[in-house]
Amino acid sequence: MKLLQDKVIKEGIVLGNQVLKVDSFLNHQMDPVLMKEVGAEFARRFADAGVTKVLTIESSGIAPAIMTALELSVPMIFARKHKSLTLKDDIFVEKVYSFTKQETNEITVSKKFLSAEDRVLIVDDFLANGEAAFGLARVAEMAGASVAGIGIVIEKSFQPGARLLAEAGYRVDSLVRIASLDEGKVTFVEQA
Amino acid sequence: MKLLQDKVIKEGIVLGNQVLKVDSFLNHQMDPVLMKEVGAEFARRFADAGVTKVLTIESSGIAPAIMTALELSVPMIFARKHKSLTLKDDIFVEKVYSFTKQETNEITVSKKFLSAEDRVLIVDDFLANGEAAFGLARVAEMAGASVAGIGIVIEKSFQPGARLLAEAGYRVDSLVRIASLDEGKVTFVEQA
Repeated sequence: MKLLQDKVIKEGIVLGNQVLKVDSFLNHQMDPVLMKEVGAEFARRFADAGVTKVLTIESSGIAPAIMTALELSVPMIFARKHKSLTLKDDIFVEKVYSFTKQETNEITVSKKFLSAEDRVLIVDDFLANGEAAFGLARVAEMAGASVAGIGIVIEKSFQPGARLLAEAGYRVDSLVRIASLDEGKVTFVEQA
Repeated sequence: MKLLQDKVIKEGIVLGNQVLKVDSFLNHQMDPVLMKEVGAEFARRFADAGVTKVLTIESSGIAPAIMTALELSVPMIFARKHKSLTLKDDIFVEKVYSFTKQETNEITVSKKFLSAEDRVLIVDDFLANGEAAFGLARVAEMAGASVAGIGIVIEKSFQPGARLLAEAGYRVDSLVRIASLDEGKVTFVEQA
C-alpha cells in the first residue's frame, strides 16, 4: 500500500535494527484518514472471504479494525489484555507473550460474541513474531469459528511471524512489508 | 442521541445500581456503524469549537475518538495507561484513579503531539467520577493547550463526574445521560 509506505518513510523512526516507531500516525497519535484508507484496503483484499467478525487486540489494533469492520459491515471485537471487572461472563482465555514488553498477557474474549458460524478476520497494527495473531486465531478456533485471514498494517518480514502463520495455514495479508531496518533505514520487501 | 438510547435499552445490561454493561456494542464488541454515527454527532456538537486534536485514553475510547477525528479532519491521540517501551520521548504523565478497577494508572502522552496552539476535544466512552476526563484535561493543560470540550458517549449522571467537570469550567457534552440504574432498569435524564 503506497500511501502507507510513504508515511513510514516520512514519519517512521528506526530504533536499532528491530524497532520501527510509528507513534505519529499508528500507535499513539493516529491519522484518521489513513486509518480509513487502511480499513478500505483490508475490506477490498478480504472482500471474498465471507468475513462475519473482525477481531483485534487492544490498543493499537482498534482503529484499523473498526475502520475495516465499518467497510465490511460486520461487528468488531477487541480482545482485552487484562481481565475486566465488568466482563464476568464465560470467556475464552489465551496466554500471549509479548517480546516487545517481555511479559505474558492473558487475552480474553467473551464467549457470547464468537460462534461456530463465524468467519473471523484478525486485524493488528504490527506483525513481528506472530504471538498476538496466533493467540487471536486460537481464541477464534476455541469458539469453533474459522479464521478468514489475518490483516496486518505493518509486517516486519525479517522476524518469523508471517512465515510461521503461513506455515500454519493462515492467509496473511500485510499492507506494508519491511525487509530490514538495518543501518537506521527502512527497506521494503518488493511487492507485486 | 436517540439511536444510542435505543441501543442502551435494547442491549445494555444493568449490574447492581452502579454498573451498565454495554460490551455488545461499545467496549468489547463494537458496532462500527454506531461508532461512525457517534463520531458524526460529536463533530456536529463541537463544530464551532476550533478543535485541532481529539484526545482519548485506551482502550474503549479509541473507536469513538477515531471516528470523531475523521469527521473533524484532525489527528487523534490516545493516552496510554502503561508506559510503552518504544515511547521513550519526553512524556506528560498524570495519575488517574479508576474506581471501577480500584487501581491508579499513570497515563502518558508524548510531548511532541500536544502544543500551546492546540484546542483539544477529549472523547471517552463513559463518564462516572470524572477521573479519566480530569486526567486527560490536565495532560492537555500541561502542554499549554486549551480544552475545547469533553465528549462522552454514556454519562452516568448520578455519579459526580459531569457536575465536577462543569464546575471546573469544562464544556461537557454527553450523547446519553443516565439518571439512574435503580431496580435493574435504565432511566435517562430528560434531554431537551
